Amino acid sequence: MTAVTSAVAAAPATLAPPALARLSVHTVTTKPWSLETCCREYAEAGVPALTVWRDALAPIGAAQAAKIIRATGLRVTALCRGGFFPALDAAGRARAIQDNRAAIDEAAAIGAPLVVLVAGAVPGLPLADARAMIADGIAAVLPHARAAGVKLALEPLHPQYAADRSAVNTMAQARAICERINAAGDTTVGIAVDVYHVWWDDQLEVEIARSGRLGLLHAFHVCDWKVQSDDALNDRGLMGEGCIGIPAIRAAMENAGFHGDIEVEIFSKRWWAHDQRDYLRRIISAYGSRV
Amino acid sequence: MTAVTSAVAAAPATLAPPALARLSVHTVTTKPWSLETCCREYAEAGVPALTVWRDALAPIGAAQAAKIIRATGLRVTALCRGGFFPALDAAGRARAIQDNRAAIDEAAAIGAPLVVLVAGAVPGLPLADARAMIADGIAAVLPHARAAGVKLALEPLHPQYAADRSAVNTMAQARAICERINAAGDTTVGIAVDVYHVWWDDQLEVEIARSGRLGLLHAFHVCDWKVQSDDALNDRGLMGEGCIGIPAIRAAMENAGFHGDIEVEIFSKRWWAHDQRDYLRRIISAYGSRV
Repeated sequence: MTAVTSAVAAAPATLAPPALARLSVHTVTTKPWSLETCCREYAEAGVPALTVWRDALAPIGAAQAAKIIRATGLRVTALCRGGFFPALDAAGRARAIQDNRAAIDEAAAIGAPLVVLVAGAVPGLPLADARAMIADGIAAVLPHARAAGVKLALEPLHPQYAADRSAVNTMAQARAICERINAAGDTTVGIAVDVYHVWWDDQLEVEIARSGRLGLLHAFHVCDWKVQSDDALNDRGLMGEGCIGIPAIRAAMENAGFHGDIEVEIFSKRWWAHDQRDYLRRIISAYGSRV
Repeated sequence: MTAVTSAVAAAPATLAPPALARLSVHTVTTKPWSLETCCREYAEAGVPALTVWRDALAPIGAAQAAKIIRATGLRVTALCRGGFFPALDAAGRARAIQDNRAAIDEAAAIGAPLVVLVAGAVPGLPLADARAMIADGIAAVLPHARAAGVKLALEPLHPQYAADRSAVNTMAQARAICERINAAGDTTVGIAVDVYHVWWDDQLEVEIARSGRLGLLHAFHVCDWKVQSDDALNDRGLMGEGCIGIPAIRAAMENAGFHGDIEVEIFSKRWWAHDQRDYLRRIISAYGSRV
């Protein structure tokens, strides 16, 4: 065999596990739980941080949510999620921009330093047009984010979602958009790296390094890619249930200067039907052995 | 909106339909039919060419298949498929190379000028290792292909298949492998461009042009990407049933110098359960209006 083995592939199996202090769990991961239950259970289990999904926030509002979170002492990693900028008409695009400004305000209210952006896509709208709308939309909300002291993390989504969820599908694409939109020396908009979306990319390691040099690595999400999946959206694996070499990707992130929270974001009908407290224990265990 | 619209997105909706003389149908598209039935029905319907899958060949052998095909006057576009080079042990990799040499012999026997290669992948095997095995495997069979006068077309597969079918997932990756393996000035191994696999790629147009300049555009497959799919493998759409802007991609191929057969390759449990003769009429109609 040709002696071509990337550093990602060659990352040592003996890599030390990440510190528990960096573990953050997305509220959507334990979707059956309310925000209040998430906070209480995470804190009791020793999880130090969480990323709040807007659907968990909606029933109680940002002010009440902020109180609950503060009372538990949990750190807020990010608010999930803004984005979805492309629309078939100008009114739809304006509404998306308005909604992203609202997300930034919610993030500031709950003490989240970051809003994750899923770019958006509309079936039938040419991808090139969607991509232009995404860049324009982010540029339009950037001053609001900067004023609020909230960063933005554009998350490239797996190409299987290009038709209806995200016309931004690779690290290189996300990085190019960030470079074009940020003012010189600014890093308000950066990248959320989710192993599920980018693990297949032969440019992954190169792009993580490049984004790191530019100060654009804003978030790191983990879960796993199941080889046999019965649902393209809600059948993600717990770390270790699939085929992603997560420790090697974590090593690439750390080599590129990322030492922030490691966020567990899993959409899974299967796990949502499981006892959530037991599931949380398994998440913590998998975080210590498979990340 | 920023005035960034690629030529792919801007291809005229009024592009003239492709000549019927360029239509080729994959035997797997009408999977319920034997090779003999495919040949008879395609010829009667006015389809001038076919791509033969090895499972259609297996029951009768290449010599008998060649006779049947010649009797109908159909042109053979390609043999599908070789590849699947990565394996966990050396014996498995050697078997794959032997099997690819057999596929090249079968192609020569039925008058197919081309063998399509699906690269392969093994769950749990690091992608970088799989990629090295793929390059080594193609290099190992290249002299046999050149001696037989048969070309090879490496088909980048959609990233959703990276775990178990193909560690080659973009045009850029396939092109780089071809450039590395071909001797200077030779184009024995080139690329099969399948709209289903590459439509999402923001580098598609650039890479089609680049591959065209290098003489690497060996095949062009069409079908459609359904926005809601119930099966990642066998629920592809007939052209027009999904969201791919096929005419724009065809225009990019033609601008890059490709004027070969346009192959209809559709895996669909839904269409396989339909009356195949009616389905073939719909394929011809969609070819004339949605390609």
